[in-house]
Amino acid sequence: MKKILVVGLGLIGGSLAMALQGFEDFEVVGAVRSQATFEKAQAKRAADRLTFDPAAELPGADVVVLCQDPAGIIAFLEEHRDRFKPGCLIWDVCGVKTAVMEAAGRLPAGVDFIGCHPMAGKEVSGIGNAEGGLFRNTHFIVTPGPGSTREHLDLLGRMADWCQFGDVIVTTPERHDEMIAYTSQLMHVIAVSVCADEGLFSCKGFEGGSFRDCTRVAALDPAMWTQLFTLNAPALCRAVGALEERLGQYRRVIEAGDREALLSMLAQASGRKKQIDLERARGDDVRPSF
Amino acid sequence: MKKILVVGLGLIGGSLAMALQGFEDFEVVGAVRSQATFEKAQAKRAADRLTFDPAAELPGADVVVLCQDPAGIIAFLEEHRDRFKPGCLIWDVCGVKTAVMEAAGRLPAGVDFIGCHPMAGKEVSGIGNAEGGLFRNTHFIVTPGPGSTREHLDLLGRMADWCQFGDVIVTTPERHDEMIAYTSQLMHVIAVSVCADEGLFSCKGFEGGSFRDCTRVAALDPAMWTQLFTLNAPALCRAVGALEERLGQYRRVIEAGDREALLSMLAQASGRKKQIDLERARGDDVRPSF
Repeated sequence: MKKILVVGLGLIGGSLAMALQGFEDFEVVGAVRSQATFEKAQAKRAADRLTFDPAAELPGADVVVLCQDPAGIIAFLEEHRDRFKPGCLIWDVCGVKTAVMEAAGRLPAGVDFIGCHPMAGKEVSGIGNAEGGLFRNTHFIVTPGPGSTREHLDLLGRMADWCQFGDVIVTTPERHDEMIAYTSQLMHVIAVSVCADEGLFSCKGFEGGSFRDCTRVAALDPAMWTQLFTLNAPALCRAVGALEERLGQYRRVIEAGDREALLSMLAQASGRKKQIDLERARGDDVRPSF
Repeated sequence: MKKILVVGLGLIGGSLAMALQGFEDFEVVGAVRSQATFEKAQAKRAADRLTFDPAAELPGADVVVLCQDPAGIIAFLEEHRDRFKPGCLIWDVCGVKTAVMEAAGRLPAGVDFIGCHPMAGKEVSGIGNAEGGLFRNTHFIVTPGPGSTREHLDLLGRMADWCQFGDVIVTTPERHDEMIAYTSQLMHVIAVSVCADEGLFSCKGFEGGSFRDCTRVAALDPAMWTQLFTLNAPALCRAVGALEERLGQYRRVIEAGDREALLSMLAQASGRKKQIDLERARGDDVRPSF
């Protein structure tokens, strides 16, 4: 029997360990650090087997899935670089790819690291909220390394199918980070910026669905998002700066009472949104998640 | 039998006409302008009776519900000011209240205008998308006029109950407009600003739920939102300016690589969001909508 070692059973790692159970002829081993996580993971049978000692599992692990935060993944690769089984496949799940792929570049030849980003999540974290169906119909973004083999890419694709991802997007780490700065990180900066307003606690009774939706992701993990933002600073700062510029344009035409310019800006932006909604509805049945 | 005249059967007016049917001993009459709306409203029995001639109904209408856009409501009040039945109750549904209450101030004495804002909606508009259950568990914001009677406020409260609103919030037009600038109009400015980005069409495969949620309301009606933004310009510009300032703060600490400051800002904002989510979960079972 072959072995998948999932390191870190939080929301994503726990859900992956659950989703991967039964995949081909693999045993799924989950590595945890705390007794509390061990007990919760055991209670919900999050993996075929649990361990506190990932290092001991590495020489026999055909697939290693790193589900820590970015700094945890980078530190793990460094600490255990000589323990990975030759020819094994390592993949990760974190939300930045350039920094992780750079760290993976220092692995021994014959160890194949493929950067991954499952576009799935919840507002709540931890093994307690993990579920095997979390990835159903979401995007699975993949950034292969320079030496990634066809065999490993195929194996990863079969795991993605088994976890019921909606599609697999193959791209470069740089393009991933540029896109994610706009589609995900910027949304989180917006949400926390809106929630920093003094009006947050006085607006009860006046919130509609647009407010709830826009601020949903503000309940984030500060330490993890500090890492994600910092590791993607240039792209994220470009995206935030571009949004500031556009908000300023709206503010200025509204201040000036220039209805014609405002109408034209709104018509253009809403037209773009309606067009993209149509395209999504036509060509794409993937439900984006988180 | 008494009469409720609903003027304008779009998404909100059509849904109200549907929700109000059967309320006490009132007949619900729906006033439409186009043949297409008439036919759709008839097909889905949106009102007890339909008319193209609201002026002819006004002298016998005990309650008039104005469901046009802001300019349409203000123009209607002016055009028909001497046709309203003495002692009648008029209420509206539009998203700004100060401008509408000012126009209502020019009505004859004995005609009671109460500003209303049902915090309900959908991304799609028109009678075709109207449904009687649209208001279930949403906020109903009410701004009484200087001469609003207890009797009319009670009648309005019973109508809100009948339509299954989750709660009724009574406030001033000024406070309504200040709060709505932050909780609703700002969310729409954010959504259209994000959708104006050139990345919108190239980010396919990289969008998660946060992106879908934040941009959902960008598919807005440009003409109506030009009116809403313009009629609430000072409060909205303050809200947009404050957001620009906060986004700039995030951009600067990320650019500077100041992890400590970033962590502290994220911890504070996410803490506020978690606190408000807790308060909402404890004290408030109203599902905010749109």
